[in-house]
Amino acid sequence: MADSLEALRGRLAGFARERDWEQFHSPKNLSMALIAEAAELVEHFQWLTEEQSYHLPAEKLEEVRLELADIQIYLIRIADRLGVDLVQAARDKIEVNERRYPAERVRGDARRASEYDE
Amino acid sequence: MADSLEALRGRLAGFARERDWEQFHSPKNLSMALIAEAAELVEHFQWLTEEQSYHLPAEKLEEVRLELADIQIYLIRIADRLGVDLVQAARDKIEVNERRYPAERVRGDARRASEYDE
Amino acid sequence: MADSLEALRGRLAGFARERDWEQFHSPKNLSMALIAEAAELVEHFQWLTEEQSYHLPAEKLEEVRLELADIQIYLIRIADRLGVDLVQAARDKIEVNERRYPAERVRGDARRASEYDE
Amino acid sequence: MADSLEALRGRLAGFARERDWEQFHSPKNLSMALIAEAAELVEHFQWLTEEQSYHLPAEKLEEVRLELADIQIYLIRIADRLGVDLVQAARDKIEVNERRYPAERVRGDARRASEYDE
Repeated sequence: MADSLEALRGRLAGFARERDWEQFHSPKNLSMALIAEAAELVEHFQWLTEEQSYHLPAEKLEEVRLELADIQIYLIRIADRLGVDLVQAARDKIEVNERRYPAERVRGDARRASEYDE
Repeated sequence: MADSLEALRGRLAGFARERDWEQFHSPKNLSMALIAEAAELVEHFQWLTEEQSYHLPAEKLEEVRLELADIQIYLIRIADRLGVDLVQAARDKIEVNERRYPAERVRGDARRASEYDE
Repeated sequence: MADSLEALRGRLAGFARERDWEQFHSPKNLSMALIAEAAELVEHFQWLTEEQSYHLPAEKLEEVRLELADIQIYLIRIADRLGVDLVQAARDKIEVNERRYPAERVRGDARRASEYDE
Repeated sequence: MADSLEALRGRLAGFARERDWEQFHSPKNLSMALIAEAAELVEHFQWLTEEQSYHLPAEKLEEVRLELADIQIYLIRIADRLGVDLVQAARDKIEVNERRYPAERVRGDARRASEYDE
């Protein structure tokens, strides 16, 4: 993992080690912690319209910003525990998606956008 | 967002724009897509022991690697739509955690580790 | 648990026992399976507008119906493993909610509706 | 929906109506609320071993019981909004599973148990 993510990776590994929390940080457990954080993000948006979700009040935006941070933190931790380079993985997946969804074929098609996630 | 994440951010914005998928990418909708990907990660681990989750067969590890990529991709997208710098947000949250959980007080304490997420 | 849920509970316990799958069905693992099913439900709705989510095409509605079934099934299983009576629990929680959110005070208030989930 | 779930369905519909919260209760939004509750369940188990997840202290078990209630409540609400009979859906899905996973073929096989969710 390059640069800033690599720096975060090292810092988070140290954070867990100093607290002797590595024993709790199996990939299985971290996947649970990650989805719990993702759900806190979802909770912020669940009763908002899509339009409202673009225009969060400052205080709520700051809360959402820290939820995104929590997700990024657990994502880095689980990738670290499994030896995965997140940036390289994202690049590889984007290439898969570019081949699978040629712009000219799927333009503006929600159905295709939906299949895109499967 | 610095460096490699910034490059991915730009590439993913272009990917959505070229396919006219920005109309679907409200923060609300992206939070749903993100948790759906997080759940695909969870699914890989749900019947494994913690020990097994460290030692995935090569083929399964590759699948997990691409699930992590999907989560990172949607995380970058939603941060972009909300104008959030993921790396800075993670740094800020780590500082909060360092103050909140002094190593000498929470060492090896699962209960504290649990409160840590709240 | 009364009546029809009780019948389902017994049938699902038999299903797991006959397949020797009880060993996988710890409350921890079942909570993961349950959220994975909840995410499949979310996936059906992630690119739809709220309006569209009320009017699913017949084929998609049937898929959604079976996702709801999967969630109900895992919910019954985990309640069974923990000795929880789902119907009684729901009744108790509704009473809590009725006290906490008097109709005259929270009417039409999304913010209150949101707090309602916390 | 039969009996006790039917009674809960009616009571929850009234609860939302009296508070004018029906406007927030689209199937899309309810799927988000449901997964957020499922995540609160997951959070209770994320740092526990599977063994510990069977033996919750009384106070934690009561919290978990009310999380299960929240999931059941939102499941009933979304089924109601979509006109789905949860008990019938669960019965139908169990029949699918019984055909798909003959006991003699999948006994004790985690891999099959895993495929079972897909």
